[in-house]
Amino acid sequence: MKCVKCESNAVISMMRHNAGFCKEHFTEYFHRQVETAVKDHSMLKKTDRIMVCVSGGKDSLVLWHVLNLMGYDTVGMYVSLGIGEYSIRSKAKVNAFAEKHGLKAIIVDLDEEGCPIPLLAAKTKRNDCSVCGQVKRHYFNKTALDGGFTVAATGHNLDDETARMLGNVLRWDTKHLSKMSPVLPEEGETMKRKVKPLIRLTEKEVAAYAFLNGIDYIPDECPKSKGASSIKFKEVLNELESSIPGTKHFFYGEFFRAAADRFPYVSNEDSELKKCIKCGTESYLDMCSFCRLTEKLNG
Amino acid sequence: MKCVKCESNAVISMMRHNAGFCKEHFTEYFHRQVETAVKDHSMLKKTDRIMVCVSGGKDSLVLWHVLNLMGYDTVGMYVSLGIGEYSIRSKAKVNAFAEKHGLKAIIVDLDEEGCPIPLLAAKTKRNDCSVCGQVKRHYFNKTALDGGFTVAATGHNLDDETARMLGNVLRWDTKHLSKMSPVLPEEGETMKRKVKPLIRLTEKEVAAYAFLNGIDYIPDECPKSKGASSIKFKEVLNELESSIPGTKHFFYGEFFRAAADRFPYVSNEDSELKKCIKCGTESYLDMCSFCRLTEKLNG
Repeated sequence: MKCVKCESNAVISMMRHNAGFCKEHFTEYFHRQVETAVKDHSMLKKTDRIMVCVSGGKDSLVLWHVLNLMGYDTVGMYVSLGIGEYSIRSKAKVNAFAEKHGLKAIIVDLDEEGCPIPLLAAKTKRNDCSVCGQVKRHYFNKTALDGGFTVAATGHNLDDETARMLGNVLRWDTKHLSKMSPVLPEEGETMKRKVKPLIRLTEKEVAAYAFLNGIDYIPDECPKSKGASSIKFKEVLNELESSIPGTKHFFYGEFFRAAADRFPYVSNEDSELKKCIKCGTESYLDMCSFCRLTEKLNG
Repeated sequence: MKCVKCESNAVISMMRHNAGFCKEHFTEYFHRQVETAVKDHSMLKKTDRIMVCVSGGKDSLVLWHVLNLMGYDTVGMYVSLGIGEYSIRSKAKVNAFAEKHGLKAIIVDLDEEGCPIPLLAAKTKRNDCSVCGQVKRHYFNKTALDGGFTVAATGHNLDDETARMLGNVLRWDTKHLSKMSPVLPEEGETMKRKVKPLIRLTEKEVAAYAFLNGIDYIPDECPKSKGASSIKFKEVLNELESSIPGTKHFFYGEFFRAAADRFPYVSNEDSELKKCIKCGTESYLDMCSFCRLTEKLNG
């Protein structure tokens, strides 16, 4: 297969477009998709101070790489979850990436903080993934506020977002359907605007970009995510994509064109934001969800 | 496995309920599901004259069987599509069922009418399934009007309806999402109320009911439906059901609880119903879609 742009040998074939790209033109295509997402959804301004939430995986490191190339002011923010070897290796990938590109990474280590995910999950008898989401949200919010960032960017790609959309639809979870937008507005002073610049790109495209551009990442999924329903949703969407190419892009894009206004954005709570009585961060309850969680460690 | 009701040997296991049923209690369960659907959605009155749209397959014959057992006034209505052996064998199943139970079947034969589906599809260069839907709708409407029926019942089961819902969601086809209800209101005098009493039952349950109750049906899918996207949607829903039991029932039921009111019913056209200039049946255009289709046969 030849590159559709320059007739040299293609390094990636895109079934949806029935076309191939060489390295140079695939990279150009990839950057254009990010630019289009940023522009179409007014995600970022050149004056923004961007906190890129990184995990050491391909998506977030590719996002950091592309935003940096595009000239944005970025700092990486990594939370080491305390999940054994997986955390040690992913932290190393983040640090190596930052060093190679002369970028700053802020690292929070949950082992040092005394609240690694496996311990918190065990103590609260809750699912690791749900505890993890809550803890990461806390540290992302805190770091964004302390560091004077104006926006938080995450590496969610089209596969992540369509899997989440499918899960929300199968449960007709209207609250979460109201939060599918790739730009979520800030709430109060703590919760900054959140953006997802990779939403036009598939997991396979992000992996190809990482490979072609020498971005070294941890390829393993988090060991705690085994059996997660999101993985099943990705599988069936990949099957549908094989039978009906374009399914994922259409499912995602058409939602915002035809249906999203039927699920208007619902703020987390009706009540006013106050200050957590323990840590002082903004919360809709007297004590923030992170402090309520970590209180259990003393129980 | 034992029957959860009477401890005799189970003949069917229901993964969603983690329970088994003997023949007698499965049949009782099945009837109760139909009664619940009919009652919850006010589908039928005891005074209704019901036209049961039958194909010779398991769903429609089981529906006819159950409605007859429940004491409703039913007549079967079958359109022989002119699709070779498949049509010959399915017509024989319908006639045999009617004869065995002393019921009346109205048969329309498209070969005799001069418009078998393969010919119409070839002449109009359209997809067989879409032509077939249109032609069947015409004859169902005509027969319901001529025969003085008050309602048309079809054998769509939970698998059919969740597959259709998934397809509509993946395209965010809001018009068709507005028509997911198992009861569609009548329009004008021609288009009678349409009801789907089997919507609480899966394909597997309907097949088991047919087997256990000696209902002889044509097991083949229509040969023209090969590769239909609805088959793919059923496959992935079955996969999801295996991973997350209850997915189909929840997806279907929760739509009506939480989301259906966000997709309000849209009538087919804004315009007034008039009479088709060729055949006189009601139509939103000067000539009804069936006559526009069959006109092509003379071209």
